[in-house]
Amino acid sequence: MLVLMRSDAAPEEIEAVIKHIRERGFEPVRLPGADRTAIGVLGTNPAATLRDMVMNLPGVQDAVPVSKPFKLVGREWKAEPTVVEIGHLRLGDGKSFVIAAGPCAVESEEQIMSSAAAVKAAGAHILRGGAYKPRTSPYAFRGMADEGLRLLAQAGKANGMPVVTEVMNVSDVEAVASHADMLQIGARNMQNFALLEEVGRTRKPILLKRGMSATLEEWLLSAEYVLNQGNPNVVLCERGIRTFETYTRNTFDLSAVPAVKELSHLPIMVDPSHGTGRWSLIPSMAMAGLAAGADALMIEVHPSPADAYSDGAQSLRPDRFATMVEGLRSLAVALGRTL
Amino acid sequence: MLVLMRSDAAPEEIEAVIKHIRERGFEPVRLPGADRTAIGVLGTNPAATLRDMVMNLPGVQDAVPVSKPFKLVGREWKAEPTVVEIGHLRLGDGKSFVIAAGPCAVESEEQIMSSAAAVKAAGAHILRGGAYKPRTSPYAFRGMADEGLRLLAQAGKANGMPVVTEVMNVSDVEAVASHADMLQIGARNMQNFALLEEVGRTRKPILLKRGMSATLEEWLLSAEYVLNQGNPNVVLCERGIRTFETYTRNTFDLSAVPAVKELSHLPIMVDPSHGTGRWSLIPSMAMAGLAAGADALMIEVHPSPADAYSDGAQSLRPDRFATMVEGLRSLAVALGRTL
Amino acid sequence: MLVLMRSDAAPEEIEAVIKHIRERGFEPVRLPGADRTAIGVLGTNPAATLRDMVMNLPGVQDAVPVSKPFKLVGREWKAEPTVVEIGHLRLGDGKSFVIAAGPCAVESEEQIMSSAAAVKAAGAHILRGGAYKPRTSPYAFRGMADEGLRLLAQAGKANGMPVVTEVMNVSDVEAVASHADMLQIGARNMQNFALLEEVGRTRKPILLKRGMSATLEEWLLSAEYVLNQGNPNVVLCERGIRTFETYTRNTFDLSAVPAVKELSHLPIMVDPSHGTGRWSLIPSMAMAGLAAGADALMIEVHPSPADAYSDGAQSLRPDRFATMVEGLRSLAVALGRTL
Amino acid sequence: MLVLMRSDAAPEEIEAVIKHIRERGFEPVRLPGADRTAIGVLGTNPAATLRDMVMNLPGVQDAVPVSKPFKLVGREWKAEPTVVEIGHLRLGDGKSFVIAAGPCAVESEEQIMSSAAAVKAAGAHILRGGAYKPRTSPYAFRGMADEGLRLLAQAGKANGMPVVTEVMNVSDVEAVASHADMLQIGARNMQNFALLEEVGRTRKPILLKRGMSATLEEWLLSAEYVLNQGNPNVVLCERGIRTFETYTRNTFDLSAVPAVKELSHLPIMVDPSHGTGRWSLIPSMAMAGLAAGADALMIEVHPSPADAYSDGAQSLRPDRFATMVEGLRSLAVALGRTL
Repeated sequence: MLVLMRSDAAPEEIEAVIKHIRERGFEPVRLPGADRTAIGVLGTNPAATLRDMVMNLPGVQDAVPVSKPFKLVGREWKAEPTVVEIGHLRLGDGKSFVIAAGPCAVESEEQIMSSAAAVKAAGAHILRGGAYKPRTSPYAFRGMADEGLRLLAQAGKANGMPVVTEVMNVSDVEAVASHADMLQIGARNMQNFALLEEVGRTRKPILLKRGMSATLEEWLLSAEYVLNQGNPNVVLCERGIRTFETYTRNTFDLSAVPAVKELSHLPIMVDPSHGTGRWSLIPSMAMAGLAAGADALMIEVHPSPADAYSDGAQSLRPDRFATMVEGLRSLAVALGRTL
Repeated sequence: MLVLMRSDAAPEEIEAVIKHIRERGFEPVRLPGADRTAIGVLGTNPAATLRDMVMNLPGVQDAVPVSKPFKLVGREWKAEPTVVEIGHLRLGDGKSFVIAAGPCAVESEEQIMSSAAAVKAAGAHILRGGAYKPRTSPYAFRGMADEGLRLLAQAGKANGMPVVTEVMNVSDVEAVASHADMLQIGARNMQNFALLEEVGRTRKPILLKRGMSATLEEWLLSAEYVLNQGNPNVVLCERGIRTFETYTRNTFDLSAVPAVKELSHLPIMVDPSHGTGRWSLIPSMAMAGLAAGADALMIEVHPSPADAYSDGAQSLRPDRFATMVEGLRSLAVALGRTL
Repeated sequence: MLVLMRSDAAPEEIEAVIKHIRERGFEPVRLPGADRTAIGVLGTNPAATLRDMVMNLPGVQDAVPVSKPFKLVGREWKAEPTVVEIGHLRLGDGKSFVIAAGPCAVESEEQIMSSAAAVKAAGAHILRGGAYKPRTSPYAFRGMADEGLRLLAQAGKANGMPVVTEVMNVSDVEAVASHADMLQIGARNMQNFALLEEVGRTRKPILLKRGMSATLEEWLLSAEYVLNQGNPNVVLCERGIRTFETYTRNTFDLSAVPAVKELSHLPIMVDPSHGTGRWSLIPSMAMAGLAAGADALMIEVHPSPADAYSDGAQSLRPDRFATMVEGLRSLAVALGRTL
Repeated sequence: MLVLMRSDAAPEEIEAVIKHIRERGFEPVRLPGADRTAIGVLGTNPAATLRDMVMNLPGVQDAVPVSKPFKLVGREWKAEPTVVEIGHLRLGDGKSFVIAAGPCAVESEEQIMSSAAAVKAAGAHILRGGAYKPRTSPYAFRGMADEGLRLLAQAGKANGMPVVTEVMNVSDVEAVASHADMLQIGARNMQNFALLEEVGRTRKPILLKRGMSATLEEWLLSAEYVLNQGNPNVVLCERGIRTFETYTRNTFDLSAVPAVKELSHLPIMVDPSHGTGRWSLIPSMAMAGLAAGADALMIEVHPSPADAYSDGAQSLRPDRFATMVEGLRSLAVALGRTL
């Protein structure tokens, strides 16, 4: 951290700040400058708390945290990439490109069975489908719950696909973990710390979606909560952030792919369905995601989007999904990746 | 909702959309225009789902939801303001200006007792203090939990002040409700729907903070979750939204005060401590909050901010808090309000 | 600036960075830490360029600029507040609260004469009105140009009010300066540097609106362009920034008032008409602006908002404006200010 | 446009709004609903002004513009893609992928000559380089002006490459147009309407960068200003938007590529140098840009980024640029594109 003193700070004020920092167990270094004195603070990671501790002292103008606050998820601390395995699938090995697809929500046995068959036929590897749905309005369709879980698992089994589904509450983790091969933490729960720790106590692969307004640093710190409980199997998922643009549902931050790769060893998936919110933009952004270096892709597919209970506007019809996967296949070859 | 057809949409495409809408139980009205045909959809609130249902149909360019999706919290459905009572305090009566103050977190018996005495002496009405703290990093101080709850309640009692504290997990609601007079839902949990419903099943006053990237509409819909469970005692709390500006911790959206007043009948509190993140800006923004028409104010006060475990940079020293309350008192008189 | 080396940076890489900085005339200080080495750079203001110079060197993880890059506008370099005089009005003296009001655009002689008379009667001090209008669409009304200037000046004179109007192009500065008492630089031109320098060469009071996505630092640096040409008469104007919220046209960042006051000695005006975009929210936010410590206020008033060529949704009717000014008057008394 | 009446609006209020709209020459259609009456307004494009005209009328709750306000740039009005030719290069033909590269600014004859030779050798088609530089601070390097223009043109000629450079002021358009093959309008000038119209009066290819906080609609309307003056040769350039994320300089909105393609017939270039602000992220995002369907790419390359006067952190070294172009070449083959 760097503490900036005001240009008119008195020598006693500077001394007092140095003393304050030292008393809290950190090592301050005085940096006299032309305009002002700055004080560097060495050592690991005191940033956030220490900033709070000096900002109220007389003569202090600002305090700037500089070091990265994460450990277990950091590339600096573990250089080799983490590979998360789901059955025979390997996310993060630098070679595979894994596709998860399926409807936003499980709506009926017929719907999930037909979705599963369609995405399997087109080349998807993992079946997705929501049983518990977070909804902005209490009056919207909120999923089939346990029955949805059961149907999803059945559809996965029937088509030889592992399944991923969202878990929203600590009390549901056990049930979801017993039916699903991968547990999704949704964007709204990225900072539900009790839930992060609960899934951290399982050894299941976790799909951690980026919060709507989360910085990369905050997102990685949420992953740190999971790893810190002993579960190293975290896949990050970029799904768009909230900005002023309204044509797209979110702003799909694809730069997060190479950025996460340089900051962390964890695999990253991209979700252009939520990232754009418009089915017409999804194929282009799926191609872009693969080219940017993502390890995996999540796509919402519905047998009849115009009848979907949710997310119809961003769901692909099965035929369009199949065409898209064909495009990804040729791209993968050029990039030395395998689908 | 208004469905916009493409300017080159075929008549059959227009017919198909009209039929699709009608089959789902809504009434479509054709609106021919110079450039294109639009289709209006009448009736209450089908917006989000219906938009999803038409966006994939051929010839559709866009679908624009127009009606407000909330009911119980809406000013249109209940014109008179809701007054939330906490002991003899009345939030939302248009007259009282209620001040909640105290440290970010309960850190020790001595710290919370001295904080309580100081804010009481200065004129605060409610004591705040965190027992369970949501922290971005798993390595930061996360509160004293049950012991913190107990100490907070004790400090409130000793000074004759009701207390407010955050509840983060469904499983803690009962314990927190047994010690606190008002339950706070933090910004990160604004869309933790299970938690909203759980506090909705109590009859305690709920302080619902606005999420970091929540629109007014989403915030009000979260309140709707609470009211929908039968608990009408919700106070909204504006605490800043996330934008590109970095000088302040958040961007304190004071316009939310009159905006919420025209959209809803619920009372609104403002929190300039989180809203700005800098103690030096807090007094001006507290004055502004009162002048904007807020019903209540929340301020972080710490006996020694430079020693706080968290939020020191945005905590006022007791003497500065007392000076600020003096300023608010004269302002209140001019506005016909009482402190 | 603080340069952070990677934790695995080789000693030669650290030496090379130190040498690179020293060769460019700055003084580097080595700060060894537990995890990594950091390098502090002393002296005034090399931040932006120097950061660029080291980011490509091997072993560098990041470089964080820390000092404030402005001089002439900075409170640190000139502690006493600047007072900008317009006739007998004094903006920034800590006492006066100055109100500029009038229509978005001059639309006709009758409209501007009646607007001027109405706002004068209600208590406004300065008449505003656009002659050149920046419009997002080329097909919208773009102002009456020279004729508008002439009519505005005439209406000001007839009512004994100085006038403020926007200048959009370098080539118009002379003409606008000959008719107007204060020149406005609009939000879209906040970084039109040639225009800033041109108005910097006049000695007219300049009203510098904050850009839609400008940080406080960028805004103050734009003011620095004007002062740097010798014109110290700059008034800053907060008019809302662009965020994800759509209920309001912009997010009115009132914290900018105390923040600018601590960073700079320049006066600040607030514009809740553009800040909120909804007439119903303006009176509350004008009150809040005064309470937050603003030096002045700008309000759009139109004799018949429903007939305005632009900004009707955010224009007050004269009677509502008059009521609002009454409210401001009592508030000013309580705050020791004068209207 | 759709006007929403309050649920408690009186019949006379509804009549008054209908009359008001009709008197202004538009055709209102009454849409009675369960909760409230809405009023649809037919016809082309009255949106913005008309909204302003009704928002102040009694009983109106909101007014929602729905139609797209652009004409000349719209895909609906011209289905076939526009191809912009620069010499033998064809931007927008669906086949070519054109690369513009070079330093942020022309710094010296030696620097631009060596840059040009290097990017040419690596496979770039167009030489970029700034002669007039918009800089946030008045104290930063602002370009070599006329001398820079001359050197850029010379370097282009020597290497057989057309050149693109930014024009910032109306008064410089003629000079820049006489040296450059393509005129760039920078992000800060995207709404400098006089400048847009001035370059619209030339017939030169125009590279129109997206403003830092511009919506797609505003960006396309700025292009409309150019086309409206008779110059159809506009290439749009996505260069990142401003969000809360700070790890990257901007948030590179790649979804803009397919979005612009569905809204407009104009070609689109992507600039990952400004889009990310970090050289290490550029190659991945260039690949992503090609895969997303962009027509062209702009990359900052400097012979020695650590010595650059500006943008060193986001400039590639020539060897890294060459490696990147190799990657793009194989990708292009797989996509049926040619470099």
